[in-house]
Amino acid sequence: MELLFATSNLNKVREANDVGRRFGVRFRQVRFPYPEVRSESVADVALDGVRFVYPMVKKPVIVEDSGLFIEALNGFPGTYSRFVFDKIGLNGVLALMRGKSDRRAYFASAVGFSDGRIVKAFEGFSEGAIARSVKGKSGFGYDPVFIPAGSKRTFAEDFSLKERVSHRAIAFRLLCEWLANRGSSKPAGRSRL
Amino acid sequence: MELLFATSNLNKVREANDVGRRFGVRFRQVRFPYPEVRSESVADVALDGVRFVYPMVKKPVIVEDSGLFIEALNGFPGTYSRFVFDKIGLNGVLALMRGKSDRRAYFASAVGFSDGRIVKAFEGFSEGAIARSVKGKSGFGYDPVFIPAGSKRTFAEDFSLKERVSHRAIAFRLLCEWLANRGSSKPAGRSRL
Repeated sequence: MELLFATSNLNKVREANDVGRRFGVRFRQVRFPYPEVRSESVADVALDGVRFVYPMVKKPVIVEDSGLFIEALNGFPGTYSRFVFDKIGLNGVLALMRGKSDRRAYFASAVGFSDGRIVKAFEGFSEGAIARSVKGKSGFGYDPVFIPAGSKRTFAEDFSLKERVSHRAIAFRLLCEWLANRGSSKPAGRSRL
Repeated sequence: MELLFATSNLNKVREANDVGRRFGVRFRQVRFPYPEVRSESVADVALDGVRFVYPMVKKPVIVEDSGLFIEALNGFPGTYSRFVFDKIGLNGVLALMRGKSDRRAYFASAVGFSDGRIVKAFEGFSEGAIARSVKGKSGFGYDPVFIPAGSKRTFAEDFSLKERVSHRAIAFRLLCEWLANRGSSKPAGRSRL
């Protein structure tokens, strides 16, 4: 099946399709700007976004919102991660973390889905830590400063790991499993994850 | 006349009344949460907010949005000033400015007004610079790190200056002058400012 993905970020569409092709789901990008609610929850932003977008496209559609939540900064930059990235960049975030021994952080991703009848969010999380410097070239956004739990390398140094365990990969997998279960009329219960 | 002021911030109501009493305008706080649109313009946020609030209160009402825009940080924290303040505080902002020789910044304030017929924004700006350390006890928010142009002291060290020249005082003065001109049926043209 094909699902529209309202986003301006082609990297996210690639990550969605990396997951989707294992489930026979193809994500097609539509560039459709939607207002982003101010909330500290990525699920709120994604649900609000997809509720706005569906009436415009009138086809099954998703939006995705994600953010990096740093413990020592009280969850900053959170749902404002894109804005903060554009303004102060990775070096700004590293400057804020200078001298902080608590490096814990997590990425959160929420995929909001609507087919006009069902509106639903699927969330994924990656636990990890903020690196002491920018490392690696792959991925995008905060990947070069995020070291997932159990690894010594950033997402930008080990992109195959990101493809498997990232917040976004998990959220897309939950969506695809739900779609698959629904298609085969199995109850959309607990996922394998 | 009395105007409702939808805000959770009593400091802002005090600053509004400092201006309003010279014009016979009394601002009365109503705690009425409204969604804040994601925009880099304080005027957008204020107009969007007052459009949301008016139908609930059905009386002449204002909302105010303001932000600190730092040149060397590409306008960060801007309309997200409150969020950034809550998360990383003044020391976070000073950490981001460490080693930056360009200290220029400005405060912007927009007051959004609606009486159900007219929806209008009044904007004020204060030019200045980011201090090298936190200074002063009065005011609130970023006042202890903002030195207005022509002064050597922060808004938090010289609150009487803030009352006269601040972005918020200017925006409220423009509103009050407009209301006064409208009341006397003079055309609401250019203000004296």
